[in-house]
Amino acid sequence: MSLQLTILGCHSATPRENAYPTSQYLEINNRHFLIDCGEGTQRQMRKHKVSFAKINHIFISHLHGDHFYGLIGLISTFGILNREKELHIYGPKGIKEVTNLQLKVSKSYSKFDIIFHELTSKNSELIFEDDKVSVTTIPLTHRVYTNGFLFREKESTRKLHIENVQQYPEIQTCDYHNIKAGKDVLLESGEIIKNEELTLPPVKSKSFAFCSDTSYKEDIIPIIKNVDLLYHETTFLSDREDLAKKTKHSTAKQAAQIASQANVNQLVIGHYSSRYKNIELFKEEAETIFPKVILAEAGKKISLI
Amino acid sequence: MSLQLTILGCHSATPRENAYPTSQYLEINNRHFLIDCGEGTQRQMRKHKVSFAKINHIFISHLHGDHFYGLIGLISTFGILNREKELHIYGPKGIKEVTNLQLKVSKSYSKFDIIFHELTSKNSELIFEDDKVSVTTIPLTHRVYTNGFLFREKESTRKLHIENVQQYPEIQTCDYHNIKAGKDVLLESGEIIKNEELTLPPVKSKSFAFCSDTSYKEDIIPIIKNVDLLYHETTFLSDREDLAKKTKHSTAKQAAQIASQANVNQLVIGHYSSRYKNIELFKEEAETIFPKVILAEAGKKISLI
Repeated sequence: MSLQLTILGCHSATPRENAYPTSQYLEINNRHFLIDCGEGTQRQMRKHKVSFAKINHIFISHLHGDHFYGLIGLISTFGILNREKELHIYGPKGIKEVTNLQLKVSKSYSKFDIIFHELTSKNSELIFEDDKVSVTTIPLTHRVYTNGFLFREKESTRKLHIENVQQYPEIQTCDYHNIKAGKDVLLESGEIIKNEELTLPPVKSKSFAFCSDTSYKEDIIPIIKNVDLLYHETTFLSDREDLAKKTKHSTAKQAAQIASQANVNQLVIGHYSSRYKNIELFKEEAETIFPKVILAEAGKKISLI
Repeated sequence: MSLQLTILGCHSATPRENAYPTSQYLEINNRHFLIDCGEGTQRQMRKHKVSFAKINHIFISHLHGDHFYGLIGLISTFGILNREKELHIYGPKGIKEVTNLQLKVSKSYSKFDIIFHELTSKNSELIFEDDKVSVTTIPLTHRVYTNGFLFREKESTRKLHIENVQQYPEIQTCDYHNIKAGKDVLLESGEIIKNEELTLPPVKSKSFAFCSDTSYKEDIIPIIKNVDLLYHETTFLSDREDLAKKTKHSTAKQAAQIASQANVNQLVIGHYSSRYKNIELFKEEAETIFPKVILAEAGKKISLI
């Protein structure tokens, strides 16, 4: 089990030469998700070697341009690349109409189906689940309807302690499934070998919470409690807390307060306003509250193994 | 009078790290126009120092993504930059609905009005005119409704031949307007000074024709006859003339044939398919037919003085 987050863009508002708006690529337990899709996302995916073919699920937090204007271009490129696999898009109500209208005016008819999962709930809800991963919404507070997303690996089964198992020639390969499922083994002699002797505990499952854009919102703390990695926006420093409040964004200090109260392991910050030339200041401010802070930067990969 | 074309993007289909889709910035007779607006146009405008504030008129040839998916992001940025001036957008019917829906879902209400000039005619028509410049459509043939655009400076008045004028102390500054308008001067002595002696011919007005995307189409030749600068797409080389025909694009040879038959002064080519790694081949092929060929490249400026 492993988790790797690749930052594709991490700036707010308007794209600039070396400042791309929000997009992240998440590999979690062999699933591949795209989160938000600002203008230029597909260019950033090519630059940072993200496979277009692996993306089957795209999660859009809200319908501000710096989080979704790159979606239609990416969908069009999927068509040009002769994609045939279904594409699932999760985002606020309206995303289906706006995407389909753009495809209609360009007379783009592709070979693959787009399955829209339009979100309207103000409560946290499970929106994706398979045998490896679950995805839950994190309702945020912004100027338009917005969700963050909590990605969590499923608990794995216990691992075989192979050296110990091999001490019992009577245990066959066909028994391994039951052992990994937690069962003890009854030998012909009548001896019972306890499962704890034959197995190792499962690798702890990883979790990642993506929270952008939002006002400071303590309501999210129970949802993101103890996650391994939290991305929380920090559009402003505390010098403009007034502007953060007005525009329903957060400061670096507020993001760190959320991380601290939620007892997360690491905090990634981004969505920097262009008014700040030195983004190191965001890290410095956040670290006054919470120790393990990573600055999002395009191309940066954050791995949890 | 002068004309300068800046290439912002010149590749077809999908944006890549160093290959931006179609967009051009035209300065003509002190007017500033944006022509097509593929994804990433605003990033390219910043990179190549194009003033956002000067753009009041945007011309969109057709509604394929590589020609207009950057429009909505640019409009949003105008809003963020507190633009107040009207913005005029000329493009195929549908452009208003798709733009307004995107603004609606993001709840973007800006201070400036967008005036849409939706095009539906299959005949060449005058769509913009002021005292300096006119813009006329060039109906093209592509998979969707498409126009090129012919930008033409207005003829200027004759220039004063100041050395000759100053030989007649009786001629005052207030007479200059009439002289530039072509009138002769009657001196008190009764002598008539012919206008030709007092003036120089007007500087020849410049013209630029933008033609992308299109099948080979000789019908456009009368419209673009004798222009100073022709941009004509060359998606393919002649080795894939079959594919050019099928996808309603042109080859480099075909673009050069149009340039030759229309007796233009210079030909700029672009909209290269990504299948060709060496774009010099487009120039070589076009030059077998027409001598003055310029390869479009992002950031290239072409000036006519």
